[in-house]
Amino acid sequence: MTEPRRHIATQTGFLMVLRQGDDVFARLEALMREEAIPSAFIAGLGFAGHVTFGFFDYEKKEYAPKTMHNLELTNLTGTLAWKDGKPSIHAHGTAGDDSFRTFGGHLLALEVGRGSLEISVTVIPTRLERAVDPGIGANVLQL
Amino acid sequence: MTEPRRHIATQTGFLMVLRQGDDVFARLEALMREEAIPSAFIAGLGFAGHVTFGFFDYEKKEYAPKTMHNLELTNLTGTLAWKDGKPSIHAHGTAGDDSFRTFGGHLLALEVGRGSLEISVTVIPTRLERAVDPGIGANVLQL
Amino acid sequence: MTEPRRHIATQTGFLMVLRQGDDVFARLEALMREEAIPSAFIAGLGFAGHVTFGFFDYEKKEYAPKTMHNLELTNLTGTLAWKDGKPSIHAHGTAGDDSFRTFGGHLLALEVGRGSLEISVTVIPTRLERAVDPGIGANVLQL
Repeated sequence: MTEPRRHIATQTGFLMVLRQGDDVFARLEALMREEAIPSAFIAGLGFAGHVTFGFFDYEKKEYAPKTMHNLELTNLTGTLAWKDGKPSIHAHGTAGDDSFRTFGGHLLALEVGRGSLEISVTVIPTRLERAVDPGIGANVLQL
Repeated sequence: MTEPRRHIATQTGFLMVLRQGDDVFARLEALMREEAIPSAFIAGLGFAGHVTFGFFDYEKKEYAPKTMHNLELTNLTGTLAWKDGKPSIHAHGTAGDDSFRTFGGHLLALEVGRGSLEISVTVIPTRLERAVDPGIGANVLQL
Repeated sequence: MTEPRRHIATQTGFLMVLRQGDDVFARLEALMREEAIPSAFIAGLGFAGHVTFGFFDYEKKEYAPKTMHNLELTNLTGTLAWKDGKPSIHAHGTAGDDSFRTFGGHLLALEVGRGSLEISVTVIPTRLERAVDPGIGANVLQL
């Protein structure tokens, strides 16, 4: 059986339709490599089987993570760029539970749940790199 | 008196400005038919007079709905496609109340409240259809 | 020392990367003037040092404001237009705290926190004006 297609080209980039079990970050990284995407702005929605949010702790220099399950991802917003020759994805998300309470933050990991997850990728023709800004101590997209 | 215009063409599709009392899903369906939109990615914001969220219950095979009133819709994200010759809209939303608490999920219905609701429609030139995926038991956009 | 660049041109408009301490509304207004943007749809994400939400009170004819600090802005959605010859920005936001609880609504003010804030600006070639709709008593984008 052939695996269903995960993306098509659009006027301004790509539309992705990811499916149950797909690792969203791995799929985006694969798309960046296959299609040689210099950089991009992304937006999406869908069903999250597992989502890990992280809030950066500047004292410990690490993200305090929390994983949640089976939420409707009401919005994903992010940018695709490169760092040290590798894809570098910056994405935030908001998600609602079965009582429509919402949770949100910086996304560390996201796996599609029962259903699908649709992402619009608007390609930017300039190759952009992320680098740690010494004054801020965080990765910043370099223009 | 002439009814105010609800959309204009843009570089990449359309900008809609809906007004108090407008049924957002009916207006999007009308736009899809009038402008023969093959498929599209949408994003928006505005004031929701009435919004119905639904969380899918796979046991009962139906959405458990909840209707809320007078919320600022902080974000609407979705895709426009077709199913059996009819418009098929998939949209999620996040909305905040007068204390800035937020609610969100899959949108079943949305009516503009006192004010307006602005939607960007980025047209995708490929006609896309939604179909129930037998392995998942949910509508999935077919690429 | 040269100030880092805050925007580059893209296929469909601009990508902005704002930095700690930047006033997001002032930066967007400056961009509109410098680049003579007729109107635009915006989307973004980043870290909010200070964010002021407002919920409109039709009795008092003013926004009831609330300012919050150090939140991950999971999504910003808005439109750029003009009013009486000046930039007129309509933007909504959703933001999560260190426990991933979210808050959201109409944005009155936004300052970038420790990190950055990325905004995609999709230019619309038609100059659009906002005007108070007498039937609604609120600013509505005129098409």
